[in-house]
Amino acid sequence: MKRQLAAGVILCLSLYLHAAAQANPVFTNTLLPEPAKLTSSEGRLPWSSSFSVSTPHFHDERLDAAIQRTLQALEDKTGTPLSKEVRTDATAATLVIDVQGAGQAIQSLDEDESYSLNITTTGARIQATTVVGAMRGLETFQQLLQTEPTGYFLPAVQIEDTPRFRWRGLMIDCGRHFEPVEVIKHTLDGMAAVKLNVFHWHLTEDQGFRIESKLFPRLTGMGSDGLFYTQDQAREIVAYARARGIRVVPEFDMPGHTKSWFVGYPDLASAPGPYTIRREFGIEDAAMDPTRDSTYKFIDGFIGEMAQIFPDPYMHIGGDESDGVQWKANPRIQEFMRTHSLQDAAALQAYFNQHLLKILQKHNKHMVGWDEVLNPALPKDVVIQSWRGAKSLSDAAKQGYQGILSQPYYLDGMKSAAEHYLADPLPFSSDLTPEQRSFILGGEICMWGEHLNERSIDSRIWPRSAAIAERFWSPEGVNNIDDMYRRLAAESIRLEALGLTHLSHQDAALRELAGTEDIDALRTFASVLEPVSFSDRYEQQHTSQLTPLDNLVDAVRPDPPSRHNIERLTHQFLQAPAADEQARADLEAAFKEWIVAAPAINAQLASTPLLAVAQSRGSQLPQLATAGLEALNYLSQGTKAPAGWKQRTLALIAAAKNPQTLVRFTFLPSLEELVNAVPD
Amino acid sequence: MKRQLAAGVILCLSLYLHAAAQANPVFTNTLLPEPAKLTSSEGRLPWSSSFSVSTPHFHDERLDAAIQRTLQALEDKTGTPLSKEVRTDATAATLVIDVQGAGQAIQSLDEDESYSLNITTTGARIQATTVVGAMRGLETFQQLLQTEPTGYFLPAVQIEDTPRFRWRGLMIDCGRHFEPVEVIKHTLDGMAAVKLNVFHWHLTEDQGFRIESKLFPRLTGMGSDGLFYTQDQAREIVAYARARGIRVVPEFDMPGHTKSWFVGYPDLASAPGPYTIRREFGIEDAAMDPTRDSTYKFIDGFIGEMAQIFPDPYMHIGGDESDGVQWKANPRIQEFMRTHSLQDAAALQAYFNQHLLKILQKHNKHMVGWDEVLNPALPKDVVIQSWRGAKSLSDAAKQGYQGILSQPYYLDGMKSAAEHYLADPLPFSSDLTPEQRSFILGGEICMWGEHLNERSIDSRIWPRSAAIAERFWSPEGVNNIDDMYRRLAAESIRLEALGLTHLSHQDAALRELAGTEDIDALRTFASVLEPVSFSDRYEQQHTSQLTPLDNLVDAVRPDPPSRHNIERLTHQFLQAPAADEQARADLEAAFKEWIVAAPAINAQLASTPLLAVAQSRGSQLPQLATAGLEALNYLSQGTKAPAGWKQRTLALIAAAKNPQTLVRFTFLPSLEELVNAVPD
Repeated sequence: MKRQLAAGVILCLSLYLHAAAQANPVFTNTLLPEPAKLTSSEGRLPWSSSFSVSTPHFHDERLDAAIQRTLQALEDKTGTPLSKEVRTDATAATLVIDVQGAGQAIQSLDEDESYSLNITTTGARIQATTVVGAMRGLETFQQLLQTEPTGYFLPAVQIEDTPRFRWRGLMIDCGRHFEPVEVIKHTLDGMAAVKLNVFHWHLTEDQGFRIESKLFPRLTGMGSDGLFYTQDQAREIVAYARARGIRVVPEFDMPGHTKSWFVGYPDLASAPGPYTIRREFGIEDAAMDPTRDSTYKFIDGFIGEMAQIFPDPYMHIGGDESDGVQWKANPRIQEFMRTHSLQDAAALQAYFNQHLLKILQKHNKHMVGWDEVLNPALPKDVVIQSWRGAKSLSDAAKQGYQGILSQPYYLDGMKSAAEHYLADPLPFSSDLTPEQRSFILGGEICMWGEHLNERSIDSRIWPRSAAIAERFWSPEGVNNIDDMYRRLAAESIRLEALGLTHLSHQDAALRELAGTEDIDALRTFASVLEPVSFSDRYEQQHTSQLTPLDNLVDAVRPDPPSRHNIERLTHQFLQAPAADEQARADLEAAFKEWIVAAPAINAQLASTPLLAVAQSRGSQLPQLATAGLEALNYLSQGTKAPAGWKQRTLALIAAAKNPQTLVRFTFLPSLEELVNAVPD
Repeated sequence: MKRQLAAGVILCLSLYLHAAAQANPVFTNTLLPEPAKLTSSEGRLPWSSSFSVSTPHFHDERLDAAIQRTLQALEDKTGTPLSKEVRTDATAATLVIDVQGAGQAIQSLDEDESYSLNITTTGARIQATTVVGAMRGLETFQQLLQTEPTGYFLPAVQIEDTPRFRWRGLMIDCGRHFEPVEVIKHTLDGMAAVKLNVFHWHLTEDQGFRIESKLFPRLTGMGSDGLFYTQDQAREIVAYARARGIRVVPEFDMPGHTKSWFVGYPDLASAPGPYTIRREFGIEDAAMDPTRDSTYKFIDGFIGEMAQIFPDPYMHIGGDESDGVQWKANPRIQEFMRTHSLQDAAALQAYFNQHLLKILQKHNKHMVGWDEVLNPALPKDVVIQSWRGAKSLSDAAKQGYQGILSQPYYLDGMKSAAEHYLADPLPFSSDLTPEQRSFILGGEICMWGEHLNERSIDSRIWPRSAAIAERFWSPEGVNNIDDMYRRLAAESIRLEALGLTHLSHQDAALRELAGTEDIDALRTFASVLEPVSFSDRYEQQHTSQLTPLDNLVDAVRPDPPSRHNIERLTHQFLQAPAADEQARADLEAAFKEWIVAAPAINAQLASTPLLAVAQSRGSQLPQLATAGLEALNYLSQGTKAPAGWKQRTLALIAAAKNPQTLVRFTFLPSLEELVNAVPD
């Protein structure tokens, strides 16, 4: 509890100092996440090729590797060749890393991730209890590097930093669509850069079983289409994550979402087989048979095997969306429920989970499950991951369960970074008691896999996850949207330098769609488009695992800069329509650019079927832009719009909102505000 | 010999038919490389989701996998979900693949790569003797897919195709800079797409030993900076290549270029150690000691180990640039030379190579070496790879040696695709006898590693290598530059869809350099820039292995479309300066775009040191564009330029040619032509 209260105090200080830092002409703060406490002064530490690092107290292989990565990144960023030698016998170095010890052998919730970073005009020092804390500090150090026309420097700052929440996760669903090892590694690089610390690996789904079992080889042999992680690869990922201070929590979703298990092992199911890999999405009736000892024997063997690969103290057993249909249809299971006084499917699932819990305990694992596992029959050390939202999580905390908030962080909703950012796992306004508050461990970003492939995934995860990472790490009061977007833009470029393709994917996809390098007009078009939400797309396109993900919707990215830029300019302009020349000029330039590009856009949209889907958007764009120009004119001149204009224009905007093309314009709410502001 | 004569005949036919195909409005030929023989007719095979494949005669795992890759690519391209089931019991399918057998267990020079492809209005058929031939046909099939506004189709064509040369290679130097496994795999994907068939893997250099030896672990343990391929990874690459009909020829460069060997095993050298990994580039004095039995014992052990990993019948022993300095300085070696009547360093190297040859023969390998290995002391089954050029290769053929041409295909020269394309390994004009001609096995593209990293490598290799691949595969007379560039533009997009980053790298690098997503102006700037040649950069920058490769020169790509486009428009315009409105308008638009972008370009160049290097180019661009506009005006109006204008302008162009900024403008020769054409 002291953690949260302290954060509140730090917050005010931090915001104050942040403003001061902004006013400091030599220091542009693009830190993301913001540290808990930062003070800056006028001085600077000059950058030079003699930059050196020492680890005078403790160092180990993990710290050494993190330092080498940092040196490489700084060298790439500055073009300055740096010595890669790190001295362990000297305290004199440009950057002294003073660490007390390695940290936990198996990183837990209680790993100390705090650090301090002190930069003066003569040198820098990171102090941390653990190597994990030092690695967090190294990320901050890199983010502090300042560029000016003639060189680089580091600003004089003092940072005391510690995370607000202990569980700061990102889940990737590799079940519905497989993601190669390289994609996972790049994701872990990105996570480390923004101080996320849990990679929740959703490894099994109706649509695919993605982790090799040597005990039960038909799981991947028949249930994966050949797309799975070998045990060696999984260990490689675990090691890669640990090297970056990231825990790996694997999820084996049971008793539902298990159809892929049944292809090779139909006896696990509650109805006779044969089974095939599910291709459709949505809730599946097939579920494990919780009444048979053989089911638990299988699970025990499998979990025992997985426990050898995944050292984390937690294991996620899913538990969501098991609809009980197979259970109801099976007389033997019905009879079992009567015999054991299990009233309904929920009770049977609780019975299943009790057995599962024993298996996990046998293998020294704590259980994590989705909302549905919450049941009085389960002990209080089960962690609830809430996909139902804050209310559900709060209710669980009131019952004494630890929980992780996820629902506001579903990336496939294609919401803005701002919307995710403002959702707090534990808002100040929460009615939880101090003890109950301590049960909220943190949050997890969820990247569900229905509409993902290895090419598009980065653009779905980044940079929005960086904004959410700040929500999980920084004090609650760090919540200025404009400032977040300013820093996010800088972080987005830094993330790309790690090898992520969230920015380059769009152009590559547009070139492939258009069959040419000449995509200037399409680039303009795509810059004001974003994918519709998962559910809008699913309803429109009736997607399955077999749907090719090569459409315009797969090319464009959620919440591109245009959305917030137009919104910010609109709000600025509307504050003084007759006076604000700059915002008006910027908006005008944008609207005119769209009009100019429209003929070329529409010619390309008409050239090939996969682009032709968006032809209606192509014809709407210049109409909407024209409406925007008209609104600007009426507003800046203070004149009324002609009769019928507003109604016609709002109808045009409404029509542009339909999700049929699978892509939507980013600027419609802002345009609507402009139009509504026109007197009539 | 019949091969070449036949190709000559086919050529005329092919060109004629190609012209006919171009005239056919329903078929845009973007095949690259052009097949040996193609006839097309008016019909078309419609595309639909019922597209199916059968392999009624032979099929194996390799063919099955190639078919799955093809189906996936077609599905991605068309957005049409396809059945992945391939029938083996039916001849009825949209595409019937009729193969006689697997091909060689270990692919050799004599593998039959020929195929025929017949597409009618009702179906398609690939016929081939081997699976490798069928895979070549599948690539052609994919390239034939036509897009129109309402759908896709395949044109009715008959293709009989066979390669002109048997050895069509690409060498990558992973010694001077290491390239990750994923980069190699993507490269192999690209090679398969354009029908290259030899991956020459340069694995050892003064600057790094890149392949694990279990017998001699200090080779990588001390000589690689930890950057090397494990034996498992090397086997994975060999298998990946074989799955695509590509041989892997490893190179272990000896007796020079071996400094990295000596770090762990100094006794191999001709002078006492200790040695460190070389960081500088250029010729190194350190060389193996050819006088000691222990040297050959070591090599025998090492080659024996490598022979287990690399099944190809050929092994490359380098042999280049051994300067003999260490040999001359060592009295014991001098004495040995006198005793053995070895006149000079070349004779001693021949002595060394004779021993090496015996070791290779013991392990059932043929020897390949660079020019320097050519010596009467060596038997005629040694293959000479020529870095000295066509003359050297021709001389070798006259002496009865087989050879591979490389010198005109050095990608680090940063030449245009056209220049590489026009260099023929065996021009019609060659004075070789028919028997000597048969000794020219083909050619190899060389990608040397001094200035490469994993981010830039794709843009250095592609798409230029695709043009060279056509030179190696297609009849000699397929040599229309404009048509090559037209097809290359299409192939470049197809290559990107395989996961290569040759197109997306530039923008990503520009964003990183500028620290922002707002790179519209820089993109315009970069579109008319290319890297200076290896030697120009090396001389200007004094690069070493430790030089960060993060400069503007590393962002821009060789021979971007602007070069040939401006050249083509210039030539078109100059044919009728007063009459050609279109070429003039296009050139004017380009020049004006550069002028408009210039202020934003120069503002960004001034903002950060790594871009500031190119500030002189930024100020030259609008001046050159203005000169271009002036030239267009004088020429279209038929007026003389004012006194001094031409001299001033040519001086401006000359100044813009200096290589100091490491990047050069692509359009200077064309601009020079325009200016020189102005009457004065």
